Amino acid sequence: MRKLHVFNQVSLDGFFTDAKSDMSWAHKRDDEWNAFASSNAGGNGALVFGRVTYEMMAAFWPTPQAAQQMPEVAKGMNQMPKYVFSRKLDKATWQNTTLVKGDLVSEMKKLKASDGPDLVILGSGSIVSQLSQARLIDEYQLALNPIVIGKGRTLFETVTDRLSLKLTKSKQFKNGNVVLWYEPA
Amino acid sequence: MRKLHVFNQVSLDGFFTDAKSDMSWAHKRDDEWNAFASSNAGGNGALVFGRVTYEMMAAFWPTPQAAQQMPEVAKGMNQMPKYVFSRKLDKATWQNTTLVKGDLVSEMKKLKASDGPDLVILGSGSIVSQLSQARLIDEYQLALNPIVIGKGRTLFETVTDRLSLKLTKSKQFKNGNVVLWYEPA
Repeated sequence: MRKLHVFNQVSLDGFFTDAKSDMSWAHKRDDEWNAFASSNAGGNGALVFGRVTYEMMAAFWPTPQAAQQMPEVAKGMNQMPKYVFSRKLDKATWQNTTLVKGDLVSEMKKLKASDGPDLVILGSGSIVSQLSQARLIDEYQLALNPIVIGKGRTLFETVTDRLSLKLTKSKQFKNGNVVLWYEPA
Repeated sequence: MRKLHVFNQVSLDGFFTDAKSDMSWAHKRDDEWNAFASSNAGGNGALVFGRVTYEMMAAFWPTPQAAQQMPEVAKGMNQMPKYVFSRKLDKATWQNTTLVKGDLVSEMKKLKASDGPDLVILGSGSIVSQLSQARLIDEYQLALNPIVIGKGRTLFETVTDRLSLKLTKSKQFKNGNVVLWYEPA
């Protein structure tokens, strides 16, 4: 069984994106944070996206600009196997990407049961929320940013039953982020 | 100048109270957490409340039940000077409580400029939000609980300008809570 992980940046008021879908508030980079992000992205996993995050990432990581700004991360992002869940997309042209068009929950169950590396969802709040409600996520890794943005979307907007988690680890960074690791309780 | 602190419990999705004003999800007590709560409550500060939190607290802490269940905390809560901000209330009968009926922001400015111990807001999400927007809060101490509740109210629902904070400390507890200390950046 492949494990399904989530990595997301969240504001102090719980939002992964603000009311205008802006996530730029989350980027407080310094050497320590860049090293953490690189080592996190350099794993042997497969990436999972919803359409919105996929389109954003596919428009950036394959470009010369990305290769210049963050060579290690760009290389990892481009080479890793990727899955995008979307009924709207007709094709996924970013290298090593598989387009999955069926029902999210049943397709994810099949994917987890298939052979392959662990799966990591980046961004993609809508699918995090639906897969949380379906109790299919094995680990949440949340980077809590030291900023209040007022309005936005949580990662759990369709969760109707309370979801109790177990904190397994936390790490404070110099840029003010706290990264928190949780598993289902 | 008196400093104004906030202490609140928040869920992992950023809410201090759920859609039904229930805060019972926050009470994961064990010896370590109780010791922290007692030492936190045993300070020499003055407490600040909005009406809703005041009425909840005033209905519990002066009772024999509170004295039996949490004697140290109850003693502290009853003895400490308290301020309740409300236009609706006619009087505040809980011992050592001052009712403040004027405009929240200007009354808080006066209170901070007056002589006396530091001020601590407990609960009272509406006034936390308004005083955050007015940039009158000097420290936020948030206990992040390992639970997703789906819908609720954030502490910052009326904040319209992004509020950047500086993380000064974090502490992980065995019950899965992480307490985070922030100051204005």
